[in-house]
Amino acid sequence: MTDSATESRGRSLADVEHGLGMPLQDAMSTQRAIRRLLPDPVDDAIVLRCIELALKAPTGSNGQNWEFVIVKDREVKERLAKRNSQIWALYGRIGRLLARGDEGAQRIMQAVQWQADNFADIPTLVVGCLRGNRVPMVLYPSMQNLLLAARAMGLGGTLITMPLWSTASARSILGLPFTVQPCCIAALGWPRGRYGPTTRKPVGEVVHLDRHGHQPWRP
Amino acid sequence: MTDSATESRGRSLADVEHGLGMPLQDAMSTQRAIRRLLPDPVDDAIVLRCIELALKAPTGSNGQNWEFVIVKDREVKERLAKRNSQIWALYGRIGRLLARGDEGAQRIMQAVQWQADNFADIPTLVVGCLRGNRVPMVLYPSMQNLLLAARAMGLGGTLITMPLWSTASARSILGLPFTVQPCCIAALGWPRGRYGPTTRKPVGEVVHLDRHGHQPWRP
Repeated sequence: MTDSATESRGRSLADVEHGLGMPLQDAMSTQRAIRRLLPDPVDDAIVLRCIELALKAPTGSNGQNWEFVIVKDREVKERLAKRNSQIWALYGRIGRLLARGDEGAQRIMQAVQWQADNFADIPTLVVGCLRGNRVPMVLYPSMQNLLLAARAMGLGGTLITMPLWSTASARSILGLPFTVQPCCIAALGWPRGRYGPTTRKPVGEVVHLDRHGHQPWRP
Repeated sequence: MTDSATESRGRSLADVEHGLGMPLQDAMSTQRAIRRLLPDPVDDAIVLRCIELALKAPTGSNGQNWEFVIVKDREVKERLAKRNSQIWALYGRIGRLLARGDEGAQRIMQAVQWQADNFADIPTLVVGCLRGNRVPMVLYPSMQNLLLAARAMGLGGTLITMPLWSTASARSILGLPFTVQPCCIAALGWPRGRYGPTTRKPVGEVVHLDRHGHQPWRP
């Protein structure tokens, strides 16, 4: 556990809100999935501020047909943890096979395992939902805003979908009406680790011009 | 056309890159879908910088299995425009019926119609693609980074999927192999309009605690 993590416990919105003034490109360049979180509670006002910025993202036809369920209740978290473990028992086995000999992939598998083992201790889950028959994609830009805002205020977070693999079960756990579809979850908490620059392929390697295969900016 | 739009023609990356230092919450609060674009070309370096920041978004299991096709060639744009018009002929009719009596919805319909009529004049399209059988959702956080970066540098943009309704046709137009799936398009150009604050529902109206229907922050 780092000093900065220890210090972050008990922080209020007033303590961290200045972080939202972080330069855009710094927030993006240092965002990473942080799965190892402290169990310490996160101030509701901080979570609501993240959601407020999530709402600023464009939605198709300005539908704004999203709803967010903040989950802090341990019993609800334990029921979602159980669903998460069920699917992870399957995916994890496959993932570990595929990750053999790839150190980076193994580190991620370990972090996902850690998250599964400690799921009910995640202080705050934000379940992003859509009303009506909208494709779940329209929610993802807003979830990215939410996670960038969280990152700027020093919160750790990841976007997960495994606990929602059974929509019927997720609806029952969260009391969602049939018109509301659970899409994904932002798992939030104060990080045990640190944020920092990520490594990515050079842009010229993934960019094509006019036709796939024409890569004039390839390094 | 506003003065600021006229000024933006011929801008280089050096002219606009400082915009990426915009405070995160300002970029988010003033992002909006901008469909009316000038036909003037956008410097490749600016588009590549947007994609570079798109790549910083987390991908599931750090897959980074995305590819981006930048489309500037008029012939390719015209073929995509045709696909866009085909599906818009259907959706637009339904949309105009649904938008009756709703001024905001009608304004959006008009802007989408404008975009369809002037599609081949959009200076730059960025087609986000995924390799392999990944769900298209994993691309959307990165497209939100791309559009936020575009907004911070003064570029207008929208996320669209209509021109891709026929995956087979999109594959043929863009020369995509069968292993690469076209997911969505960021349409970019210098705006005819202006960026500005958007109106959104109060956060307490869309947030529930632990169970749908429990809304302690409802205004």
